[in-house]
Amino acid sequence: MSHFTVGIVGISGYGGGEALRIIAQHPNLRLIYAAGESSAGSMLGSRFPSLRQDLASLVIQKFDPDALPELDLLIASLPTNQSREPLAKISEKTRIVDIGGDHRYVDGWTYGLADVWPDKIRGTRRVANPGCYPAATLGALAPLLHHKLIDPTHIIVDAKSGVSGAGRGSGDNKFGYAEVNEDLCAYGLLKHTHMPEIKQTIATIGGHEDGLVFTPHLIPMTRGILTTIYARGEADTARCMEAARSFYADRPFVRVMDSAPHTKYASGSNYIFLHYAADPARRLVMALAAIDNLGKGAAGQAIQNANLMLGLPETTGLDTPSIWP
Amino acid sequence: MSHFTVGIVGISGYGGGEALRIIAQHPNLRLIYAAGESSAGSMLGSRFPSLRQDLASLVIQKFDPDALPELDLLIASLPTNQSREPLAKISEKTRIVDIGGDHRYVDGWTYGLADVWPDKIRGTRRVANPGCYPAATLGALAPLLHHKLIDPTHIIVDAKSGVSGAGRGSGDNKFGYAEVNEDLCAYGLLKHTHMPEIKQTIATIGGHEDGLVFTPHLIPMTRGILTTIYARGEADTARCMEAARSFYADRPFVRVMDSAPHTKYASGSNYIFLHYAADPARRLVMALAAIDNLGKGAAGQAIQNANLMLGLPETTGLDTPSIWP
Amino acid sequence: MSHFTVGIVGISGYGGGEALRIIAQHPNLRLIYAAGESSAGSMLGSRFPSLRQDLASLVIQKFDPDALPELDLLIASLPTNQSREPLAKISEKTRIVDIGGDHRYVDGWTYGLADVWPDKIRGTRRVANPGCYPAATLGALAPLLHHKLIDPTHIIVDAKSGVSGAGRGSGDNKFGYAEVNEDLCAYGLLKHTHMPEIKQTIATIGGHEDGLVFTPHLIPMTRGILTTIYARGEADTARCMEAARSFYADRPFVRVMDSAPHTKYASGSNYIFLHYAADPARRLVMALAAIDNLGKGAAGQAIQNANLMLGLPETTGLDTPSIWP
Amino acid sequence: MSHFTVGIVGISGYGGGEALRIIAQHPNLRLIYAAGESSAGSMLGSRFPSLRQDLASLVIQKFDPDALPELDLLIASLPTNQSREPLAKISEKTRIVDIGGDHRYVDGWTYGLADVWPDKIRGTRRVANPGCYPAATLGALAPLLHHKLIDPTHIIVDAKSGVSGAGRGSGDNKFGYAEVNEDLCAYGLLKHTHMPEIKQTIATIGGHEDGLVFTPHLIPMTRGILTTIYARGEADTARCMEAARSFYADRPFVRVMDSAPHTKYASGSNYIFLHYAADPARRLVMALAAIDNLGKGAAGQAIQNANLMLGLPETTGLDTPSIWP
Repeated sequence: MSHFTVGIVGISGYGGGEALRIIAQHPNLRLIYAAGESSAGSMLGSRFPSLRQDLASLVIQKFDPDALPELDLLIASLPTNQSREPLAKISEKTRIVDIGGDHRYVDGWTYGLADVWPDKIRGTRRVANPGCYPAATLGALAPLLHHKLIDPTHIIVDAKSGVSGAGRGSGDNKFGYAEVNEDLCAYGLLKHTHMPEIKQTIATIGGHEDGLVFTPHLIPMTRGILTTIYARGEADTARCMEAARSFYADRPFVRVMDSAPHTKYASGSNYIFLHYAADPARRLVMALAAIDNLGKGAAGQAIQNANLMLGLPETTGLDTPSIWP
Repeated sequence: MSHFTVGIVGISGYGGGEALRIIAQHPNLRLIYAAGESSAGSMLGSRFPSLRQDLASLVIQKFDPDALPELDLLIASLPTNQSREPLAKISEKTRIVDIGGDHRYVDGWTYGLADVWPDKIRGTRRVANPGCYPAATLGALAPLLHHKLIDPTHIIVDAKSGVSGAGRGSGDNKFGYAEVNEDLCAYGLLKHTHMPEIKQTIATIGGHEDGLVFTPHLIPMTRGILTTIYARGEADTARCMEAARSFYADRPFVRVMDSAPHTKYASGSNYIFLHYAADPARRLVMALAAIDNLGKGAAGQAIQNANLMLGLPETTGLDTPSIWP
Repeated sequence: MSHFTVGIVGISGYGGGEALRIIAQHPNLRLIYAAGESSAGSMLGSRFPSLRQDLASLVIQKFDPDALPELDLLIASLPTNQSREPLAKISEKTRIVDIGGDHRYVDGWTYGLADVWPDKIRGTRRVANPGCYPAATLGALAPLLHHKLIDPTHIIVDAKSGVSGAGRGSGDNKFGYAEVNEDLCAYGLLKHTHMPEIKQTIATIGGHEDGLVFTPHLIPMTRGILTTIYARGEADTARCMEAARSFYADRPFVRVMDSAPHTKYASGSNYIFLHYAADPARRLVMALAAIDNLGKGAAGQAIQNANLMLGLPETTGLDTPSIWP
Repeated sequence: MSHFTVGIVGISGYGGGEALRIIAQHPNLRLIYAAGESSAGSMLGSRFPSLRQDLASLVIQKFDPDALPELDLLIASLPTNQSREPLAKISEKTRIVDIGGDHRYVDGWTYGLADVWPDKIRGTRRVANPGCYPAATLGALAPLLHHKLIDPTHIIVDAKSGVSGAGRGSGDNKFGYAEVNEDLCAYGLLKHTHMPEIKQTIATIGGHEDGLVFTPHLIPMTRGILTTIYARGEADTARCMEAARSFYADRPFVRVMDSAPHTKYASGSNYIFLHYAADPARRLVMALAAIDNLGKGAAGQAIQNANLMLGLPETTGLDTPSIWP
């Protein structure tokens, strides 16, 4: 069995931690390097107390791109605006999946929407992982755009995310338990940071784009994203479902459901659950997607991309059921 | 100080319980009757262990409309389809607020959208309390419809509710803690039961109605509703905010906020928090409302209606801050 | 009706916020001053969006003990070690209740265990409010100690608290939603900071003290404390219940329950719920107490103390039911 | 690689579901039979939407012990008092692990405390899996009892469990989300059903037993058990830690921690996390254990037992990190 050496940068964060959890179960990846700002110097096992002993004893490094061991793959999960410079220094021999946002739609990097265009990703060496909101949104929209069932210029995305999507250690108390628990709010009205990424991909698949409306909401739960999308089109429900089923035929991580999906279907996994409902009389097409924001929305898709880049079967190490209840 | 005798039917449910909590703090209402299916025969204090002694010793009755004491006011919170017949038997001398859904837009009953048309409610004797989703939706839409800032035929309501909105004791485990916690889903796509009520009120205020899209979601929290509404119109943000502020000038329970409201702003209170954002270039008007589904969405608005019916100052017994955190 | 002018210091924190919520409903207290570190300069209404207009327009000050308005009462809720010096400067004319921990068992200050010794508090001008864990622990123990039903030298307190007990704005992510949700832990084994306060009161009521074991736990909920206490004694359950019922006869905020209490019984209120179970064969006496850590554990008891200090009926402004569900 | 055919009875419940999740990742177990009361007739994939296709298409049966396929292993997770009769009918060729409570300390069945006495389990064909509370309690106590560091006749166990421990589908609303969320309570004071099982094992390891005090609490979270144990003994902290470390040397699922464990350390895994603190001056020894009630407390330990029964390496299919955050 072929083995590849792997490193993770940003191990103290939720994305890096989830990458570690998946890699620990992956038969072909061997973690030999982990770097993190707040945890440098301690052993992996002190942060992740359920690791196997061989992983637990790895010492967390301060990230220095000039002093990396030889790696077949690096998973980078750094804060926004902190990865361009250091990742540019890393040898082409090392494949990189950037979970962070700095390389999306940047020259030389492939946008890693793995369920939609796996062939673009196979064998590449620099992949920008989609953001968590775009992963859920674009997964639902792609079949409709591809089959021209909706007008790409009138799309409304009402998105809801668990709190881990805000990242760890913001330093203020905005995401403190007693603030977030039993609360619900929208934020970033008409100006959310993920909009350009979504718009660009809509244009790529749908031909053009205009007027996307994207409203994120913070939900009192740890993991999960649900996007409820309202678009214009004449197709009925059956046509939309069929379009999604044919578009994603043989795609192993996409499940087109007969009823509205729950985020819990996806907890701890790389799956995306889709559902469609349409009312031609109102020219309305609704699309719903449920993912784990740390799975398909971050580390799950990152490892799916890594599998494609390394020539491994796409589901390797990812084919495990969600956690329930 | 004038005193009115009050009864509550449906005391075992969440709506009835919240009515009890408010009435216990109301200076002009004296509870002398409480009825409930599952709790008949026990004392109020055994169900609500923090009640004052005078209320705690009241014995819960099995509801019998033919054997009511003389009441100035009855708050009814019965399951759907169970209130028409019994409430019809009750003397006109007893004012009734029906928190349940059976009398909304029914002849002889006033639709109790208290913040919007208090004058219709003052002095009436039969009021149908709005549903929780309609309360949040219509509170946000009314100023836009009244000022003709949006097209009443193209409204999308993406609504999110805490679990207490589903009522108590459904008997299955669909709303069990381990099922709902850390989960999020949409339900009733394109066919939710509250749609007719919302549509009728849109038509009443906005002149006509067509094509309402309403999508409810279940949120892992106990209390709270947030509606995120997408409509068509040319107005900008300032115009919408100004319309809401003038429409609700002097309305004591409506707060038009400078930023997106949190449901927690409203927890345990009768307030509704509104916010608007518009993008004329896209002909988009967004309206947001946050309420407590058991407050403005049920018992709070019921007591506001009762105050209006009884000729009391509208805020009597309701002018208390929300619970935080 | 007599009116007293009141100030709150520490309005940005959870304790100060809860004091504000109670004072807003209190018929004899008029808030004219509010101070807070992080919120100075803004209006109260911007932090507490459901306040009545008269309170909402009050501007939050930076706390300066030399520049206070004339106040009949000051509620202080400052971080540990920050209240001794400034509060010492305040005129004797202003009564003070210190919710913080700096004046507990300090000369010149009365320990405000209001349900146990109201007569010591009546008319005093400096009261140190009990900590939240001590409030729950001592409320349960007092009748047993007073009636000499347990050995004061062998008491084990297993205490569980919601997250708001940790205060607001610690600045690190230890109490972040995604860290605390779905997690449970003990902390401060054999060395918790509240132990001296509890031990001193055990000695005061029970004659002597030795060997207290106190283990706090963090529970994934916002409000509530439950203490499960294991002590040694020969009494049976009936004797313990009877002792508590006679000890607390006529005490309005204490409820001795026939079964184990839920913390939710107390949410948003100043009540304490007690229950006892004993097994003479094992010389075991168990005592349970449930409170809201921000109610009886902080601001509720503070206002109860203030009522006693000001000569008001003890339940004024506090006689409201808990929030449910 | 050797393969064994497996069946699960009780697939609709939380224990059966977790067994399914683990078996789906187990390299040597092949699920060919699943039975469940409420889900009979539907496909596994309709209940567990993230299953691989080969498992998803398995049709759930109504359990009939006379019509089982040939199985190497059956995992039974039936309600109390419903497994003795049907399991007695099953051929000795089929090994059985009973997650339910009916065969604990019953003749012919081995009590499956896998971390403590793996050698008793190896090669046996009938194993009664420990209950979730006993698993956490006995895991912590075993080293202390074995090394005679505590008095087996004076043990107090204060246990806290997430809601999934109550099982699924009780049919009443006691475990409804709005009832349990933001609530905390003790139950079954001095008479909990798991006490005999714990007492018997204490006697087995510790020589004799008397006077166990066991107090379970319900915590508003889905998964996790924490036991906080108070015992009598002269040992200091270092001695207790050392005793645990030597007792569990080489046991792969036991982690003796330097500080108090969090239940989240164990989420989704078969690990048990232990910690000890002692105060010889008070003759006090404290022991803490954190597990996932569905992992070490049910399905995790069941598969560990199955591995031992089948002659597989004990960690096969179980050596995966916990889910975090």
